[in-house]
Amino acid sequence: MVNKKEYTVRFLPFEIEVEVERGASLLDTIRQVNLPMKTSCGGVGTCGECNVKILSGTVSENAAKGLPTDIISQGFVLACQTLIEDNLSVQLPHFDEQTIQSVTDSDYFIQNKDNISGVYEVNPIVRKISLKLDPPSLENNYSDLKRLEIKLDDKLGPMEWTCAFSVLQKLAQIVRQDPDKVDCILSSAGLEKTIIDVVPTSLEKKVLGIACDIGTSTVALHLVDLMDGNILSTASSFNQQIKCGEDVISRINYARKPERQKELHTLIIKTINHLIHKATENADLSYSDIYYGSFSGNTTMIHLLLDLDPRYIREDPYSPTFNLVPIVLAENLDLDMNIEARIFCAPAVGSYVGGDITAGILSTPMLKNAEDISLLIDAGTNGELVIGNKDWMMTCACSAGPAFEGSGIQCGMPASDGAIESVKLNREKQFEFQTINDSKPKGLCGSGLVDLLSELYIHGFIDRSGKFISNNTKGLLKDTEEGLAFLILHGKDTFWGHDLVITENEIASLIRTKGAIFSACQLLIKNIGIDFNNIASVYIAGGFGRHLNVENAIRIGLLPDLDRNKFHYVGNSSLLGALLVLLSDKNREKIESLIDKMTYLELNTEPRYMNEYTGALFLPHTELELFPTVKDMFVKKIQ
Amino acid sequence: MVNKKEYTVRFLPFEIEVEVERGASLLDTIRQVNLPMKTSCGGVGTCGECNVKILSGTVSENAAKGLPTDIISQGFVLACQTLIEDNLSVQLPHFDEQTIQSVTDSDYFIQNKDNISGVYEVNPIVRKISLKLDPPSLENNYSDLKRLEIKLDDKLGPMEWTCAFSVLQKLAQIVRQDPDKVDCILSSAGLEKTIIDVVPTSLEKKVLGIACDIGTSTVALHLVDLMDGNILSTASSFNQQIKCGEDVISRINYARKPERQKELHTLIIKTINHLIHKATENADLSYSDIYYGSFSGNTTMIHLLLDLDPRYIREDPYSPTFNLVPIVLAENLDLDMNIEARIFCAPAVGSYVGGDITAGILSTPMLKNAEDISLLIDAGTNGELVIGNKDWMMTCACSAGPAFEGSGIQCGMPASDGAIESVKLNREKQFEFQTINDSKPKGLCGSGLVDLLSELYIHGFIDRSGKFISNNTKGLLKDTEEGLAFLILHGKDTFWGHDLVITENEIASLIRTKGAIFSACQLLIKNIGIDFNNIASVYIAGGFGRHLNVENAIRIGLLPDLDRNKFHYVGNSSLLGALLVLLSDKNREKIESLIDKMTYLELNTEPRYMNEYTGALFLPHTELELFPTVKDMFVKKIQ
Repeated sequence: MVNKKEYTVRFLPFEIEVEVERGASLLDTIRQVNLPMKTSCGGVGTCGECNVKILSGTVSENAAKGLPTDIISQGFVLACQTLIEDNLSVQLPHFDEQTIQSVTDSDYFIQNKDNISGVYEVNPIVRKISLKLDPPSLENNYSDLKRLEIKLDDKLGPMEWTCAFSVLQKLAQIVRQDPDKVDCILSSAGLEKTIIDVVPTSLEKKVLGIACDIGTSTVALHLVDLMDGNILSTASSFNQQIKCGEDVISRINYARKPERQKELHTLIIKTINHLIHKATENADLSYSDIYYGSFSGNTTMIHLLLDLDPRYIREDPYSPTFNLVPIVLAENLDLDMNIEARIFCAPAVGSYVGGDITAGILSTPMLKNAEDISLLIDAGTNGELVIGNKDWMMTCACSAGPAFEGSGIQCGMPASDGAIESVKLNREKQFEFQTINDSKPKGLCGSGLVDLLSELYIHGFIDRSGKFISNNTKGLLKDTEEGLAFLILHGKDTFWGHDLVITENEIASLIRTKGAIFSACQLLIKNIGIDFNNIASVYIAGGFGRHLNVENAIRIGLLPDLDRNKFHYVGNSSLLGALLVLLSDKNREKIESLIDKMTYLELNTEPRYMNEYTGALFLPHTELELFPTVKDMFVKKIQ
Repeated sequence: MVNKKEYTVRFLPFEIEVEVERGASLLDTIRQVNLPMKTSCGGVGTCGECNVKILSGTVSENAAKGLPTDIISQGFVLACQTLIEDNLSVQLPHFDEQTIQSVTDSDYFIQNKDNISGVYEVNPIVRKISLKLDPPSLENNYSDLKRLEIKLDDKLGPMEWTCAFSVLQKLAQIVRQDPDKVDCILSSAGLEKTIIDVVPTSLEKKVLGIACDIGTSTVALHLVDLMDGNILSTASSFNQQIKCGEDVISRINYARKPERQKELHTLIIKTINHLIHKATENADLSYSDIYYGSFSGNTTMIHLLLDLDPRYIREDPYSPTFNLVPIVLAENLDLDMNIEARIFCAPAVGSYVGGDITAGILSTPMLKNAEDISLLIDAGTNGELVIGNKDWMMTCACSAGPAFEGSGIQCGMPASDGAIESVKLNREKQFEFQTINDSKPKGLCGSGLVDLLSELYIHGFIDRSGKFISNNTKGLLKDTEEGLAFLILHGKDTFWGHDLVITENEIASLIRTKGAIFSACQLLIKNIGIDFNNIASVYIAGGFGRHLNVENAIRIGLLPDLDRNKFHYVGNSSLLGALLVLLSDKNREKIESLIDKMTYLELNTEPRYMNEYTGALFLPHTELELFPTVKDMFVKKIQ
């Protein structure tokens, strides 16, 4: 008997649709399409973690059994308790794109526009020129193209312009509509000098561009008016590829079959097109007016964007297909932009230090002078580090893992609505929390987890190896199926109505992540033969969020123990770098010449890395001397 | 009642298929699809002109009624007598592409390679470079593209190459197959420097190009090895657009609806693809190895090739879309070539003097020196003329009409198998004929018609206005439905078994054609203020065929009365010019700078042209002084 697929379930924000039989479990369906969904009870309705929001369609009352009434009234149910008996539209709340923060943070950039490595000016490669053509006559019956080019030369000086085929095909008609007033849209991408559109001036055609950062977890873009450089709209969402694996390594593994490589390519294109539509609709503009896209992303993301086989990225000797990416037509990628839109992708230094980093450097002051040495730490799903100055740079990447982005940690979540972004233990040894939007707590984002780890350590709930000091935890330890867990917050005080806890295994995972990042820093400074104190500035980009408490990050050994004033949170430097390139071709030149002065240290094959890493698996580190202020704190305590 | 379309009839060489009802007339079907087919009896089976060859399918015996048995045995039937009762494949014999001559004539070129305006050298914009890459290693884990570019720089000097998107997509795989030996195919078309293919050296990949002349009636191409410049194969056929009109004006009219413009575009692409397949199959090569196409053709043909609206070509002030055509990708035109193949189209001087002429000049010595003035006459379906030298040129076009190509003349035919290419009246006042391939006569091609007109005139069968001198025609006049007709050849001596005749109306049509060409010549020399005797050389290109008898052409007033040694038949100069551009980019530069020194005289709006034309509607001309040798001949006769 063939079971009839009766209902369609649509998952947002991923736009994934699946056909299911009557009575199928919603949790099973979510797993079937590989969407991430936590459950610690194994799907029996007790942990209350598999919350989803039903946007349309009817489910039985039982589906929400045990959830707090205010949650139920918002449309939430437990996926494990929901049997499908209708067409459903389902929102996965942890991926609610309306509330993603940090991916479009630009406070630092806005305050420091004049002190960044890139040039902040509006001079993009795509521009609009208004011309007044002579109408054709028997005395001047030059071709339409020739009459256009003569006026272009008058305006811009003699230059050899070529004409896109699509323009040639409509030229005769456009120049006869109102020959007096024709707008030419020109691209000077790379070596080309091309007329990419002609429109009647009366149309007041917008010339738009997008700057887009493709993160492994999140994708963000700015829609920009290329005539004045203004950001018209901003959109961000989760990378729909998440269902194929959470980090770059799992994506590369997933892509081993050609049809799966194509699937990943299609998913990122769908994600970007979704954002393009969101941004243009917000601004009441048409996506066909987007003539230029500036993209940044790690090397794997850009390979998948371009539908290139990423397998060699993770095979010794880790050689990617490109460093500099040639200009590509948006049409070749099925991106919803003008058919002649040009795509620039920020160049990669190597397989694990990509265009997100090279673009990111532009939006920091790292290249501003030759004396001071700066360090850039971009900790997203992967961790990348750059050290250097105007004249030289060294870079490496480490598999930090997405623990600080909330992945693999029950109480973790992305920096979205309801995320605890800072944690403090007060004098009464009670936790005080601050959540995004002051909402009822749903979980902890990166900066919250850093704080939690630091507070647990400093207040003696865990030892230097991250194990619970059970005689110190005052009844806050619970025995769960995942082992001993520390109770952070009672269910009654949380949005979902279930306890927020953290296990020893999860603490170990956070320590591994911070250890990976710190030991990579350490290897970098040893390689160039300096000491941490020689570093003048540390720029922190990426997933931790703007509320990262530097003091706590140092206490757990994530960041080096330097003068706190040296640390600057720069937000999504990759997106800002892409924006700089979009706005001025000087930044493209800068970024392209940058990769020649960057030395790439491959940690995959660096035996010393494992030594450094092992040392960093303590709080703050096996060598306490590396963290004098943390050491002092304990000495003071003992005194 | 809806009649069922039961059978499919396929017409060759046009590859046109049509579904018809049982019992439909084949002649009606041919007319339905607009294919040209002569009948002078109106389709009642008496004139015997509507011969077609049945290549497959069965027709009744009656269909061949009255045809000579040797013709029947070759499969010929009369279309008007054929009722369709089977699926048929039908060859239209006048369009038998196997036998088209003259469109690929290159004798003059081969003998004068060193004395032409173009450069004869093998240095095309597309070339293959063999590289030995360093395999990726941990010490040299540059990207694949970077390692390739380093070796390219080693070989060619530092240059900024970009990489086609399709190449990027296969690069990783190709450079890992045999990294030691990779062949790069490079294009330096226009401003670009692009890697358009990478292949393992072991593949011994051919790098092919095509040179193609798109005539209004015929299309011809050479398949060329771009590594050594050798012509590997040549193919020609009729332009499938013929069914939409015989000359450029009727094609432009046909194209007024967008779907019909698209139809004409598709027909020329089908014609070219058919020739590409023919040429590559002949040479046992793959069309995907064709990386470069150099095209020439009149302005209307190139507009239709590029799917551009041609309407403005025939609307005052006759302004085409382009003079110089930007490089176009073959893929955009659906041409069967490599997906990265580049297309160059020879530039047009104006709406009626196109790339066929600018290319044609390259294959003559016209630009060789600044002293001598030369005249180029290209008489195809349209007539174009160029006068000038290295420093200046003036050009114009006249609607000569396709009379000398056999169109609109019952006894006329293209220069293919069985065409009478020369005619002479011997002392016994009997015609002597020479046919192509010494076949039994089927009709007269251009050179045969020139001879016929001259002989009729010189021997007093017609007067100076082209009217029969009936007391002189010795029983050779027949009264036909088309009026009085002169019997050229008895049916018993012809291939088709029916008489070859010419009517007064047809003679008038030939006189109009020769008059149009001569009066355009006259206007040109008057415009530049010289005399015919100042012309040092006359180059004759196009449809007349290599057997054009210059003496006879002068006697009828088609060519000016100059020293016979000044005349040179240059063959299909347009095709040869396209070949020169294919082989060397210097010729592209030459041809592109050429159009700036050409003055275009628009005859459509030139009142003096009508005066000159009227004077030229006599044999040889109203002003007999313009043709002193012809005048002398008559003076001698009278004496």
